[in-house]
Amino acid sequence: MKDFVFYSPTQVVFGREGAEQVGALTAAFGGRKVLVHFGGGSAKRSGLLDRVCRSLEESGVAYMTFGGVKPNPRLSLVREGIRLGRQEGVDFLLAVGGGSVIDSAKAIAYGLAMEGDVWDLYSKKAQARACLPLGAVLTIAAAGSETSNSSVITNDDTGEKRGYTSDLCRCRFAVMDPSLTFTLPPYQTASGCTDIMMHMLERYFHPGGTASMAADSMTEALLRTMLVCSRRVMEQPEDYDARAEVMWTGSLAHNDLLQCGNGMRGDWACHQLEHELGGMYDVAHGAGLAAVWPAWARYVVDTDPGRFASFARQVMGVAETEDKTAALAGIAAFEAHLRSLGMPVNLTELLGRRISEEEVQKLAHGCSFQGKRTIGTLRPLDEADMAEIYRRAR
Amino acid sequence: MKDFVFYSPTQVVFGREGAEQVGALTAAFGGRKVLVHFGGGSAKRSGLLDRVCRSLEESGVAYMTFGGVKPNPRLSLVREGIRLGRQEGVDFLLAVGGGSVIDSAKAIAYGLAMEGDVWDLYSKKAQARACLPLGAVLTIAAAGSETSNSSVITNDDTGEKRGYTSDLCRCRFAVMDPSLTFTLPPYQTASGCTDIMMHMLERYFHPGGTASMAADSMTEALLRTMLVCSRRVMEQPEDYDARAEVMWTGSLAHNDLLQCGNGMRGDWACHQLEHELGGMYDVAHGAGLAAVWPAWARYVVDTDPGRFASFARQVMGVAETEDKTAALAGIAAFEAHLRSLGMPVNLTELLGRRISEEEVQKLAHGCSFQGKRTIGTLRPLDEADMAEIYRRAR
Repeated sequence: MKDFVFYSPTQVVFGREGAEQVGALTAAFGGRKVLVHFGGGSAKRSGLLDRVCRSLEESGVAYMTFGGVKPNPRLSLVREGIRLGRQEGVDFLLAVGGGSVIDSAKAIAYGLAMEGDVWDLYSKKAQARACLPLGAVLTIAAAGSETSNSSVITNDDTGEKRGYTSDLCRCRFAVMDPSLTFTLPPYQTASGCTDIMMHMLERYFHPGGTASMAADSMTEALLRTMLVCSRRVMEQPEDYDARAEVMWTGSLAHNDLLQCGNGMRGDWACHQLEHELGGMYDVAHGAGLAAVWPAWARYVVDTDPGRFASFARQVMGVAETEDKTAALAGIAAFEAHLRSLGMPVNLTELLGRRISEEEVQKLAHGCSFQGKRTIGTLRPLDEADMAEIYRRAR
Repeated sequence: MKDFVFYSPTQVVFGREGAEQVGALTAAFGGRKVLVHFGGGSAKRSGLLDRVCRSLEESGVAYMTFGGVKPNPRLSLVREGIRLGRQEGVDFLLAVGGGSVIDSAKAIAYGLAMEGDVWDLYSKKAQARACLPLGAVLTIAAAGSETSNSSVITNDDTGEKRGYTSDLCRCRFAVMDPSLTFTLPPYQTASGCTDIMMHMLERYFHPGGTASMAADSMTEALLRTMLVCSRRVMEQPEDYDARAEVMWTGSLAHNDLLQCGNGMRGDWACHQLEHELGGMYDVAHGAGLAAVWPAWARYVVDTDPGRFASFARQVMGVAETEDKTAALAGIAAFEAHLRSLGMPVNLTELLGRRISEEEVQKLAHGCSFQGKRTIGTLRPLDEADMAEIYRRAR
């Protein structure tokens, strides 16, 4: 087992009555003047925003609301939030929404605790030294941002989608009410389930194969849970228990628990390949991951067929004894599962058209930071590899 | 899935170089004057205490050492630690040892943050409002106290062994170096492995059967990990990877992760039955658990044979299709596993003699708080049930 640090301090409050506890939680974690950050109108229409604001009022916590976050959250809105927060003396960020809202709130919280430009963090020009405390009321099971130490922001001037990682931005608390996800559109539900499974797969496929039985066996257990429950939420959107399994697994998939002992790195190539797609075409994150994973998996399978075979046998129920055959059967079975959720499994299905060779080159050039970096750890991929995966994913 | 709160803020630093990070960690979590609490001579002889003290010095953290903790940590030593800590103005507790040392440190930390008698917490006469911050350097994989919110203290005047539970006492950090456990005697290693498995089983057997697929499947995965690795550490005491799986699973078994969604209660009857044994006969905790579990399991199996059958099939590899038959086969298989580790599986093996009917009655009377409480949730047990389990466990 490899050395690790595990730190997941977020207090998770799970159940139907979570919104009513937001005020007390915010006050307990020191919030006095809160910026309540949210997305479009659904938090308003559903009455959730009112419940949250009432709870803050009842606990004597001052607040202001600031909405408008869109999927692939924009730097321009983050900058507006920082200006507003500074002007109003905000000392706590409360995100009411999904991963995009939480990521946007994290970026605002960083920005309010630094003097320079917050994009310097995401473009790797600076390191954060502080971050305002945050809380989250989760409405979408997907990104895992409520317990993760990462956030991803898109620079709307340049189209770059970049992540920044630091324990400073871990939420103090996360209120999770699975019933808030009953009304998510099917495509968004499926995209969220895909994102959750991919957070586990990105960690499972790391260099060196099994390094921790605990991490591997828990990952396999939760992937099997997701295979069952992702189908159940598609068939019965108001199945509370299935929504709950998906929501809770979404947090466990991304709070680093599942990589402890495995080297803490994971692969993350598919996330990088998708970030480039998200920046260029503004697609749903999970759908973008589904569209590149099968091509990635078949491209790298020979690097560690035994690992893919373990996935096939322990998660996908493949009985095949020969490793490479099992590995390919597992990839096909997972691809079929994604398809059964209504997810695209290639770029043509994702975008509704076949991208050109020029677009392939542009994606690979962007994803490789103009040829200056490789991505992935199971098999490090350079610009030419990236181009080939995008090409095969068409 | 049932509502839950999950809060496990302990920063885990896992690996061979942990002791050298203690000073920086203590300083980061605010320690300025530290009481370094430990047990007998092994922490000194191994050089660990020196490494820890050197690390504190290098970080400019003042400290004093206070040893002498024995298994089933005593209230008298806790009171001495509180007097000493108050006299010296201690603001941080650092436990260097196993669960007994950590539990003793937790009790001292409570005592230093309250005005009344600390035993009032354990005898349920008072609730804690504060607790000094703690850190731990773990040397025994067993109790899980390094990430748990509980501590157990024995009142040496009355022989009562009582626990107290509150998030206030969760360690700020836990340094875990599996190589520190290489030299544990086999009986203590086996007893620790048993304690870890029992922490999972106590949570797995709760009223209502499967309430969370995530919790159940992770528990089954980690129990299977323990079945493999508990054998490996008995056969190869210096197998780092096996020691690491056991140590990390020990923390996950007791930080509440495995009961999220299951009602957060667990059964805990075996722990209560064992606490009475520990108070009266001063036995190793894990060995005491091993001695009562088979009798407990066979006594309550009819309450939920399906649950015991799931344990048998998912963990013990029992293929039997009829539930009750599978359940009994699973209990027998786990009993055989405990025996293979060298653990006693009844009270006669535990104590080296057959206890009298009078002792049975005295144990049950003490465990039931003189007939004033029941224990267990899967099937609540009154004084007569407790006596019958002790009797059958002879």
